[in-house]
Amino acid sequence: MDYKNASLPAAERVKDLLGRMTEEEKIGQLVQPFGWKCYRKTNGGAVELTEAFLEEWAKGGVGSLYGTLRADPWTEVTLENGLSPKEGAAALNKIQRHAVEHTRLGIPILFGEECSHGHMAIGATVFPVPLLVGSTWNPELYREMCRAIAREVRSQGGAATYSPVLDVVRDPRWGRTEETFGEDPYLIGRFAVEAIRGLQGDDLSAEDAVAATLKHFAGYGASEGGRNGAPAHIGLRELHEVDLLPFRMAVEAGARSVMTAYNEIDGVPCTSNEYLLNEVLRGEWGFDGMVITDCGAIGQLAGGHNTAEDGRDAAAQALKAGVDMEMSGEMFRRHLAAALREGRIEREALDTAVSRVLGMKFRLGLFERPYADPERAEAIVGCGEHAALARNVAAEGIVLLKNEGRTLPLSPAAGKVALIGPNADAPYNQLGDYTAPQPPGRVVTVLEGLRRRLGGDRVLYAPGCRIRDDSKEGFARALACAERADVVVLALGGSSARDFGEGTIDLSTGASVVTDRAWSEMDCGEGIDRSTLHLLGAQLELAKEIYKLGKPLVVVYINGRPITEPWIDEHAHAILEAWYPGQEGGEAIADILFGDVNPSGRLTLSLPKHVGQLPVYYYGRRTRGKRYLETDLSPAYPFGYGLSYTEFRYGKPTVEPGVIGPDEQAAVSVRVSNVGDRSGAEVVQLYISDPVASVTRPERLLKGFEKVALEPGETKTVTFTVGREQLALIAKDLKPVVEEGDFVVMVGPNAAQVETARLKVIEREGKR
Amino acid sequence: MDYKNASLPAAERVKDLLGRMTEEEKIGQLVQPFGWKCYRKTNGGAVELTEAFLEEWAKGGVGSLYGTLRADPWTEVTLENGLSPKEGAAALNKIQRHAVEHTRLGIPILFGEECSHGHMAIGATVFPVPLLVGSTWNPELYREMCRAIAREVRSQGGAATYSPVLDVVRDPRWGRTEETFGEDPYLIGRFAVEAIRGLQGDDLSAEDAVAATLKHFAGYGASEGGRNGAPAHIGLRELHEVDLLPFRMAVEAGARSVMTAYNEIDGVPCTSNEYLLNEVLRGEWGFDGMVITDCGAIGQLAGGHNTAEDGRDAAAQALKAGVDMEMSGEMFRRHLAAALREGRIEREALDTAVSRVLGMKFRLGLFERPYADPERAEAIVGCGEHAALARNVAAEGIVLLKNEGRTLPLSPAAGKVALIGPNADAPYNQLGDYTAPQPPGRVVTVLEGLRRRLGGDRVLYAPGCRIRDDSKEGFARALACAERADVVVLALGGSSARDFGEGTIDLSTGASVVTDRAWSEMDCGEGIDRSTLHLLGAQLELAKEIYKLGKPLVVVYINGRPITEPWIDEHAHAILEAWYPGQEGGEAIADILFGDVNPSGRLTLSLPKHVGQLPVYYYGRRTRGKRYLETDLSPAYPFGYGLSYTEFRYGKPTVEPGVIGPDEQAAVSVRVSNVGDRSGAEVVQLYISDPVASVTRPERLLKGFEKVALEPGETKTVTFTVGREQLALIAKDLKPVVEEGDFVVMVGPNAAQVETARLKVIEREGKR
Repeated sequence: MDYKNASLPAAERVKDLLGRMTEEEKIGQLVQPFGWKCYRKTNGGAVELTEAFLEEWAKGGVGSLYGTLRADPWTEVTLENGLSPKEGAAALNKIQRHAVEHTRLGIPILFGEECSHGHMAIGATVFPVPLLVGSTWNPELYREMCRAIAREVRSQGGAATYSPVLDVVRDPRWGRTEETFGEDPYLIGRFAVEAIRGLQGDDLSAEDAVAATLKHFAGYGASEGGRNGAPAHIGLRELHEVDLLPFRMAVEAGARSVMTAYNEIDGVPCTSNEYLLNEVLRGEWGFDGMVITDCGAIGQLAGGHNTAEDGRDAAAQALKAGVDMEMSGEMFRRHLAAALREGRIEREALDTAVSRVLGMKFRLGLFERPYADPERAEAIVGCGEHAALARNVAAEGIVLLKNEGRTLPLSPAAGKVALIGPNADAPYNQLGDYTAPQPPGRVVTVLEGLRRRLGGDRVLYAPGCRIRDDSKEGFARALACAERADVVVLALGGSSARDFGEGTIDLSTGASVVTDRAWSEMDCGEGIDRSTLHLLGAQLELAKEIYKLGKPLVVVYINGRPITEPWIDEHAHAILEAWYPGQEGGEAIADILFGDVNPSGRLTLSLPKHVGQLPVYYYGRRTRGKRYLETDLSPAYPFGYGLSYTEFRYGKPTVEPGVIGPDEQAAVSVRVSNVGDRSGAEVVQLYISDPVASVTRPERLLKGFEKVALEPGETKTVTFTVGREQLALIAKDLKPVVEEGDFVVMVGPNAAQVETARLKVIEREGKR
Repeated sequence: MDYKNASLPAAERVKDLLGRMTEEEKIGQLVQPFGWKCYRKTNGGAVELTEAFLEEWAKGGVGSLYGTLRADPWTEVTLENGLSPKEGAAALNKIQRHAVEHTRLGIPILFGEECSHGHMAIGATVFPVPLLVGSTWNPELYREMCRAIAREVRSQGGAATYSPVLDVVRDPRWGRTEETFGEDPYLIGRFAVEAIRGLQGDDLSAEDAVAATLKHFAGYGASEGGRNGAPAHIGLRELHEVDLLPFRMAVEAGARSVMTAYNEIDGVPCTSNEYLLNEVLRGEWGFDGMVITDCGAIGQLAGGHNTAEDGRDAAAQALKAGVDMEMSGEMFRRHLAAALREGRIEREALDTAVSRVLGMKFRLGLFERPYADPERAEAIVGCGEHAALARNVAAEGIVLLKNEGRTLPLSPAAGKVALIGPNADAPYNQLGDYTAPQPPGRVVTVLEGLRRRLGGDRVLYAPGCRIRDDSKEGFARALACAERADVVVLALGGSSARDFGEGTIDLSTGASVVTDRAWSEMDCGEGIDRSTLHLLGAQLELAKEIYKLGKPLVVVYINGRPITEPWIDEHAHAILEAWYPGQEGGEAIADILFGDVNPSGRLTLSLPKHVGQLPVYYYGRRTRGKRYLETDLSPAYPFGYGLSYTEFRYGKPTVEPGVIGPDEQAAVSVRVSNVGDRSGAEVVQLYISDPVASVTRPERLLKGFEKVALEPGETKTVTFTVGREQLALIAKDLKPVVEEGDFVVMVGPNAAQVETARLKVIEREGKR
């Protein structure tokens, strides 16, 4: 059988295999049921296959399983009924064996797993959320993180991830802001490229490679009012310029899979959008991988978007539009056969989709090596090396927003620290959404991080209040702690923690009490959009009470979207924005508080002053306006902003040559010096401004950045290449073009603070 | 000379005249300098032409003059240096005489005037702002109002108005919300049609007709963040469905002029948008009138949008895109000749634009009757009949939002009323933006209205506080007044009053004191966008203090955009939303407070609960989401909402026939009864829901309404025709189409409270 011959090209193997398949088997390849429903844990950690799985299987097999190792309150997979990494690998092997050994054609299953910031499975390393990763401005470090994630997933048998998230955030009311790299399309694109390199590597069949899935395609970050999955009101040109850019960059880097978004764009749902999937993605960009839906998105065509009459119509529309696989799979499984019979879709369309799925499996080497090695999984998943990497990423991405009178770093040698706040010792609150239940002691909280550093005696802890509760019953204890300390570290913010059965904290003792009480502290995460951006509950009041004591006050925000608290901006002596820093967050925060790490994180979102000021993303057009009655349009902290414990100085940028053709490149150089007294890293940012163009342009747009380490007194020259990628705009015909004329090149430490130089683009033939 | 022969068709006269004109004369026809700069008032009310005008004239004449009678702080035309209606007519005659009698060809000037809610000239009637007009849901009444405006303008020589404003408000942070009819495209379209009938009449050359100008074309109400003139992020299909609909309806009704908007849509400024002006407006809709820019919009192409290199490029782009006349005229005057010389534009394009301008003048009869009759102007402008109409419109548009325990109407027979608040006796605060200085005593404030009704003794007045000032120095006097009264009427809200030199009020005495102090109370109007929607200054606090007295509390809002004050929603016993009710506002408010008029105004905006909830317009798609963490998505008061002093009951709607073809019509009927004890008018609203369509649809969309008067106990059957206009959607190809399938017909008193019936559309040929 040719398809089993690994020496043949994948295309030939696909063709051969396709020729042997029944219609039912073909449809089976396009469905992706919920994997965690396939097994039941038995005594001793082994698993048995469920009736549900066997029934599903009997209907024509399954091409893929979704989130087989996913564990969280939604899947109801817990530390008790879930699987350790070793058990997980063994379980996937058992399921795979059913496919490979007990079916006519032996087509292996593609196990796809959630990996927003680490594999969403028990025991896996929980890295910081993408919003923090973006804040590192270090895509190469993210590549390492992705490689670690790929290694953990693949060691257990997972072969595809549902990451990276490439959505461009316009409105941080959106609860999934934390899952993104921020507001800038180019920065997201740079991370996207490294995600592909890290996850997929050079060889998709390697034991540390998985197929990356770009999501959510497209416009999902431009939803109305920041509401999850709401319509994107956006023109096609802007869609190409902003939302599609990171996807295009990732496709050019070789991404193998793309997930459709829930939302619609100008009346057309993304999951039935032929223009997006077939014309743009496959046609213009030459993408030859597979397209999968978001969970339930086909059903939503009939029940939500209402652009399909029923499930059959929806399934047919999605397949015709270019969808190859349905997450959950219910509509494809139920309706594709009938849709074929009725002539709603061509058999060729079915074969095309199946070919793409099979092609993915051949590329992944699943036919040759369908099984995982449980011992290897046990050794790799959640290993110390990955924990160290998680800590490094966190420390690089935490942003120092304020540091009045060098309040930070704190001296590790002397004094007592009062650590107060609802996020001081809340493990799940550090992790963000899309997180599995954690083995006890796995997460280093801020409290644990400080205790490891200072010893228990020098750290005085009180929770003070909760995230979403107005109770002040913890204030007294918190104030008593603060009173006795030399400095107060106030860990405030939000939470994307779902109900892991942690119960609620005892505010008066600080003890973590597991109760039956359903108490959600969530103010962020998927489905938790906000209409205000201030701190909830009694947090601000707690800060004000503590401030009155006159101690140095360091605010550490742990949260998933911008916080607008002008009082804190004004009164706190130092502010760290730690986003959700992951399992090693407490270590990373301590690293920064005590100066072991000099902060080099920079914002990838413009932090607004007030929710009524939105949108404030930095790349508005020149005509977006200057102010509201109550406030100007400038953000509280600009895109790209972040302080260091040292100081950097920029020279005047130079451009060489100053005149280029549309297909040529220039080098933009700038000398950056560390003029402070500590070694540190600066994120040198390149923005391009296009003073006159055939369409309106943002006043500036990020088109390059480099993180550069500098010793005290050291100067380095940073050089950016400026060419087509940096200068092209999306013209009225929706095609990229570099237009003749003057450009302003801007270099600086953030979007609001740049030095400029000129560059001219001319047609060499001497036109005009 | 053929062009002077009134018996020839306009097209022939245009052709003849065009053939006689020099290039300079042609360009002159396309410019519209500021008219108020053309004259200087001399002793005795006569005027002399200024050097500026004569210089402008020497450059090739002027086709049109903008706002020659406009008076306001921006033009610096005041009651002192400005002109009475009679003087105004004489002044225009004098200017016109220059054109008609002292030039080679004698082409009359087109005088274009601002008429947002009445002619923006001294002495003209100040009607309520369009937002209140929309709230009447009585387009026929608006037609009368437009006819009155046309009569006032034309009597003074004005021949074109820069109204109606057909912008669709998505985000009430926008300061020009007051200038619109609200958020619904169909409702705006209905008012637009009556505007054309009222302003233009059957014969544009009649002495009570003027050319209407539809503005702002297009997408101006969809600006980013509600910021004035900011980019519209919107897809083309939605643009057609929402923003273009009222324009199309007005063009079909015969509108003669269209103004381009400042904003861009998806990167293309409206003023250089060939697609909008030539393809859609002229091509698809067959518009054969003239297109004028907004003031300075061509310059903004080069300095703002930056899609033009300089003024010359901008002028050429605008003309090529389909602009015929430039308001201000600076770019066309300076650059068109050079642009022609350089071949940037064709001579044919120039001739086409000139032909459209000349065609307008012929249609208006300006060649035959270029002069106004000053005596007639004096008799008509600001006449008592128009004041009565202004009062009627105001009374029909004021919306009763709350009336707990029948607090309203107040008894006119007994008791004392405390009238308190910054809008109780502030004439300009009632008028809205685009208002001229008012002769003393012209505006009936709420205080005056109440005094006329009750006599001075029974009305206790205190301002209490200012709009934008935190001072509470007026609280004591206000509380003292309230203490002595039986009921408190609290006139709160905002102001769009520019600095007419009124100075500031003395809070402790209530006296209106003219001072030199520059004190702006503006919180609304063009350029005054807001990032919050609550009451400014000490107004809420004033309300809370007064509430403590335990008296019946009636809040009257006078303002130009929604106010979000949940405390008032909860605690006030009655709430009237009076928007800016115009010069007779005090009468109209008294009419309603004392029950002479039973309120029949209904909201044309969904009033949000909080600025962070925006957008909340009622016609969101089904997938727009249900809630934020802090609040659901439902508005504080829904679109269409408003109470009456009586009560109406709806029957179940019927549809006949229940099945129609795509080009056929059905009749939707509903019985509506007045089951209360007063006569009143109900606004019966028809919404259409399209459960399944080729593109996503709003869950419901207004497609009919009728205001019906009912005596107590009376029942009427209201019948709506449902056909192509009600059922068509804008398909992916941007064309309207009625699709087969089921529709849900909804009838009720507001968008959130409807009874439903079914209608089916089938292809008669029996397809599927």
